[in-house]
Amino acid sequence: MSLSPRLEALIDAFCCLPGVGRKSAQRMAFHLLERDRDGAAHLSAMLGDALEHIGRCELCQTFSETDRCPVCQDHTRNPELLCVVESPADLVAIEQSGDFSGYYFVLLGHLSPIDGIGPEDIGVDRLLEQIRQRGVRELIMATNATVEGDATAHYIADRVDESVVTITRPAQGLPVGGELGVVDGGTLSHALRGRRPLTGQFE
Amino acid sequence: MSLSPRLEALIDAFCCLPGVGRKSAQRMAFHLLERDRDGAAHLSAMLGDALEHIGRCELCQTFSETDRCPVCQDHTRNPELLCVVESPADLVAIEQSGDFSGYYFVLLGHLSPIDGIGPEDIGVDRLLEQIRQRGVRELIMATNATVEGDATAHYIADRVDESVVTITRPAQGLPVGGELGVVDGGTLSHALRGRRPLTGQFE
Ligand SMILES: [Zn+2]
Ligand SMILES: [Zn+2]
Repeated sequence: MSLSPRLEALIDAFCCLPGVGRKSAQRMAFHLLERDRDGAAHLSAMLGDALEHIGRCELCQTFSETDRCPVCQDHTRNPELLCVVESPADLVAIEQSGDFSGYYFVLLGHLSPIDGIGPEDIGVDRLLEQIRQRGVRELIMATNATVEGDATAHYIADRVDESVVTITRPAQGLPVGGELGVVDGGTLSHALRGRRPLTGQFE
Repeated sequence: MSLSPRLEALIDAFCCLPGVGRKSAQRMAFHLLERDRDGAAHLSAMLGDALEHIGRCELCQTFSETDRCPVCQDHTRNPELLCVVESPADLVAIEQSGDFSGYYFVLLGHLSPIDGIGPEDIGVDRLLEQIRQRGVRELIMATNATVEGDATAHYIADRVDESVVTITRPAQGLPVGGELGVVDGGTLSHALRGRRPLTGQFE
């Protein structure tokens, strides 16, 4: 004999989560049924609620419960600065750093020909339209520091017209507070090539 | 600014899953909303379905969609053998080994005074009643090989009356196919203390 059909179906459903294999999925299903039925009911309800009410901002494509997200509704920002990121999580991380006063465009992914994800899937045309409409002067390509993120940044940079004066990528280097010995070789090499004068000593 | 309230609520809801912290929960929520809305709807439905239809077997306490589970409904089994396990997953694992022909009792946990889990929470009285009703002669205490599993096994063994002739614990030792060098010290020590004659050579 095996588990009951509905329990099997629940375990299968958990397998759609990233990083969750059959064994973790079973542990999740058992945990909820044994010890946290209220949590399971809440998760089920919140999933339904999110699917029903969370869409994308019509301007920047980030997750939003309203037609335009709070950032796009904030008219005190600098429209000449646009930061392109892969995910809503990146937007939140940059907002929390407090160093950026422009608007965003969220690709919700990166170009990946092997997975059939082309420019139209990540909204490149909508991005180019945003750049024109907002009169963007500096475009910060904050896609991930990965092969795909780099390729996506370069593809978009090639398609942006000359009205955009500057196109930048965030600096790569040592994490703040990071120890040299635990940083990977690629990061270390970027950090060394991008070395800058020690303020006060050389400037 | 932060994430939308419904997205925050969904991330919080995922945190109720075992082994899922805030960061994994966010990755799960984003993955489903970005890439797998069908999967999310399915998970929500299967959770609701499981909560509505999966209860416990009235005899052995395992998860069941019917009053009595398929094992308890199988009258070809040996009622004199009863195997006590902590979880429905353990029941399935033992069934799959194919070596057991008796019935089960699933505690759905173990005694844990520190968490306020006492005998009544794991159904010890129902177990004792099952033992009497089925006329059990051998009780296999297959609770986990942990401090809590051992304590639970001993507590139950003390409360079983003399009609049960034998109370056993599964042997502890090397896993089949296991290499000596990668086995932990406690297991190795059990394996050595429980050493048996090599069949054919010493018998
Ligand atoms: Zn927006
Ligand atoms: Zn049963």
